[in-house]
Amino acid sequence: MTMKYFLIGGAGFIGSHFAQKLLKDLNCNVTIIDNEISGSKENLDRLGILENKKLDYIYSDILDVNSEMLDLEGSIVVNFAANPDISLSNEQPTLDFDRGTLLHNHVLELCRKKNVQQLIFTSGSGVYGDRADKFLNENLGNLNICSPYAANKLACEALSLAYSNMYGIEVRILRFGNVVGLNQTHGVAYDFIRRLIQNPNKLTVLGDGYQSKPYIHVNDVVSAIYLVSSLKGKNIIVNAASDDFINVRKIANIVINSLGLTQCEIEYGNTPFGWNGDVPVIRLDSTYLKSMGWNCELNSQQAIEKSVMEMVKRFKSEL
Amino acid sequence: MTMKYFLIGGAGFIGSHFAQKLLKDLNCNVTIIDNEISGSKENLDRLGILENKKLDYIYSDILDVNSEMLDLEGSIVVNFAANPDISLSNEQPTLDFDRGTLLHNHVLELCRKKNVQQLIFTSGSGVYGDRADKFLNENLGNLNICSPYAANKLACEALSLAYSNMYGIEVRILRFGNVVGLNQTHGVAYDFIRRLIQNPNKLTVLGDGYQSKPYIHVNDVVSAIYLVSSLKGKNIIVNAASDDFINVRKIANIVINSLGLTQCEIEYGNTPFGWNGDVPVIRLDSTYLKSMGWNCELNSQQAIEKSVMEMVKRFKSEL
Repeated sequence: MTMKYFLIGGAGFIGSHFAQKLLKDLNCNVTIIDNEISGSKENLDRLGILENKKLDYIYSDILDVNSEMLDLEGSIVVNFAANPDISLSNEQPTLDFDRGTLLHNHVLELCRKKNVQQLIFTSGSGVYGDRADKFLNENLGNLNICSPYAANKLACEALSLAYSNMYGIEVRILRFGNVVGLNQTHGVAYDFIRRLIQNPNKLTVLGDGYQSKPYIHVNDVVSAIYLVSSLKGKNIIVNAASDDFINVRKIANIVINSLGLTQCEIEYGNTPFGWNGDVPVIRLDSTYLKSMGWNCELNSQQAIEKSVMEMVKRFKSEL
Repeated sequence: MTMKYFLIGGAGFIGSHFAQKLLKDLNCNVTIIDNEISGSKENLDRLGILENKKLDYIYSDILDVNSEMLDLEGSIVVNFAANPDISLSNEQPTLDFDRGTLLHNHVLELCRKKNVQQLIFTSGSGVYGDRADKFLNENLGNLNICSPYAANKLACEALSLAYSNMYGIEVRILRFGNVVGLNQTHGVAYDFIRRLIQNPNKLTVLGDGYQSKPYIHVNDVVSAIYLVSSLKGKNIIVNAASDDFINVRKIANIVINSLGLTQCEIEYGNTPFGWNGDVPVIRLDSTYLKSMGWNCELNSQQAIEKSVMEMVKRFKSEL
């Protein structure tokens, strides 16, 4: 039987790449619903799937849709929707609530009413809070939430598990490191490239540049989502990240070299974090997901290098 | 300087008792806002504070109020609002969301906009999920959420901590065992009394009666809230419960004896839990709060006995 997937925010960064894998490699039926706030048809076109016959595309906000309007039966539902710019939280803390917890609660109700068997939620390392350079596994205690982004991710996880226990929906939660790749719309290397295209002579960095985090290429994210989707079990919560990390100073140099700039001045800030609510040092332990057969093909530096190459090519073609 | 408190859901069970302490023992200024869905002016009257001159009473839903309508400056804000009947979750899972996470997010925005210095949130043991007879301290790991009630409590905790970190609001979170006392509107002994007044010959118990949990009298809850409110510190998360526990069979006998019934038949169910989402065995470790000077005056049995006496007197006078 052909697998059916229903992707909320499926025209966004991670969603579009996952849709590509489902349509091109796995011959699945895919429905995407996207409000095109940060997602776009261009993302799908760039990956060669916009005209795919097995793709249904709904241009709508999931919050405007009720269960009677959707054919969800037999689909695996993946919620990729989120406010993609977590640094906006400081001025607009309700963004993460409205596009996170409120929206996900609505998705859970849709799943409950339509007897959806599996729901996948894309969470993030923020749920662990600021733990400096400790490698974090999924069983960590202490609530240590630093930002609305993180709080809403955790809220969505908790609500998902409640629905799993009460209504038998299988839940898959993936806590990613920083995801990078062609269709990304935010992120440190993305910002650097955009700004250096505007002004190749000077790069201003938020924070002191020693923020160091794991980066994961979207291809490895896609394989992680598909793997946990295919595993048996009621609830599965996994980290998905490279084992290592890279700091912002090194990323700045990779971007500058990739653009072939030789005269660029870099100006660093003097705070250890990039913005209020940022967690400057993150390490994730993905042993559990690896024990289930996942392989992270690129380490942090390779993921950054590959995504920078992809983005430089994309932005140059758009100039 | 006279302390000012703003109590959301302050006409409800725990809120009314806390208001009584603030007004009668501590001479504070108190504003209560309550939508009277489960709270009531009768609760305040029963505690002798309805006409207190230091009490301002606003009959309104906090969700209908914006920051410009409120004089919150200088107040400690306590959010007691919640769906009080957690067993309703099964049929109406959005109740806990609407009266929990959605409402608390609104409260946090009010606090942010009015520069509130301290926010107190009344959480519950549900955030730990089902851990059988392990004594649970505040640092426990693993997300183990069983019900919408629990998920929404955890969501509120996480959002509170985010606002604390981003906007400097001091946050106090108290995770109570089952709270009992005069003004309660739900709970096992409350249900037994109500039903035995209707039919003194037979008591039907949800579950097999071996559900065993800690019970805490609302007077001990009130002292815990006031203590953590007076402590210094950015964020404080504490359990507040008696160290022991009592099972439902024993509670049934206490209620039957208190009503002077001799011919009552008890019929037990055959599930270990009372309803879908119920956690049948709970133990809470309140060592941390005790280390800060809290004393739980009544153990679980004493708390049940005192609350049953109080409620029997109340209901008989209402007949």
